Amino acid sequence: MPDSLEALIEALRQLPGVGAKSAARMAYHLLQHDRDGAQRLADALMAAVRNIRHCERCHTFSEQPICSTCADPARDQTRLCVVETPSDQAVLERTGAYDGLYFVLQGRISPLDGVGIAELGLAELMVRASDGVIEEVIVATSFTAEGEATAHIISQALAKRGIRATRLARGVPIGGELEYVDLGTIAHALADRH
Amino acid sequence: MPDSLEALIEALRQLPGVGAKSAARMAYHLLQHDRDGAQRLADALMAAVRNIRHCERCHTFSEQPICSTCADPARDQTRLCVVETPSDQAVLERTGAYDGLYFVLQGRISPLDGVGIAELGLAELMVRASDGVIEEVIVATSFTAEGEATAHIISQALAKRGIRATRLARGVPIGGELEYVDLGTIAHALADRH
Repeated sequence: MPDSLEALIEALRQLPGVGAKSAARMAYHLLQHDRDGAQRLADALMAAVRNIRHCERCHTFSEQPICSTCADPARDQTRLCVVETPSDQAVLERTGAYDGLYFVLQGRISPLDGVGIAELGLAELMVRASDGVIEEVIVATSFTAEGEATAHIISQALAKRGIRATRLARGVPIGGELEYVDLGTIAHALADRH
Repeated sequence: MPDSLEALIEALRQLPGVGAKSAARMAYHLLQHDRDGAQRLADALMAAVRNIRHCERCHTFSEQPICSTCADPARDQTRLCVVETPSDQAVLERTGAYDGLYFVLQGRISPLDGVGIAELGLAELMVRASDGVIEEVIVATSFTAEGEATAHIISQALAKRGIRATRLARGVPIGGELEYVDLGTIAHALADRH
């Protein structure tokens, strides 16, 4: 196999969810059917690496020092929603049910990988949440073990500073049939009934 | 979402087997955790587009005018194996059971996509197979409808020129239990019993 083909397959394999076979398939496809697409992808990668930084206020991806959400005066400045990733932020935005601001942790604690709460920017979050304008911090980390642990640490740190912290409700999803929902979720939904 | 992030996700979506969610996940991963990987991928793409061409004899991917397989005097020069793609060629090489030469069609006929046998290089294959040295052409296209049709046309064209064409054997795969093998395959294996 030519060296530059092997190097391309190896580089594609580093993408999340891409194994050796998919990487080879992608490389063959690009070289055989879509060389323009390969060039476009190379250009897009370089432009993104060059232009994308983190918003200084909320840490999400942004081309400006302050992202468009943080810079929008129409957003509710008294609420701050803490999410793990920019994708989680995008999901919340798509619901159309939230018009406050965000703080993006860029991950969740993972002791085995050496990712503690300090790496996720807990200190910056505390500074951000203590600006005197924020009245409520909605902790919207995942409902996994790591996400729950992250939420617990954040809520405790906020409580110490007298800032109100809330968490997304747990319960039966829309369209969910009780028969197929896990027992832990049903137990939570029962405890949080209203 | 920043423009260059959106452009990157869009470019990643063009890869085969990558949808909108995977593309977003890849882009976030690269920007958050692996900017060096993103740059390496961009470099690998550009190097491959710049360096990889088709071997003039067998049409496989190569950085040289003639690929290393075609240039290898130790290969059996009297046998030519016709495959659909460089990946199929790689699979045959990994078996270690073939030491002849190759001809890579770079596809199979697909009338709906306007890919006829001419686009696959039938004329070049006939010139290649008529060099007076080739004694046998092994048609190793897929056992799909399109692959079979491709094989049929190639075999007919070779027969007209008096060149011997063979086809890979069809049969029960190693480890295959008859109960789970499709009936068409069993019928073929029965007909080709030896």
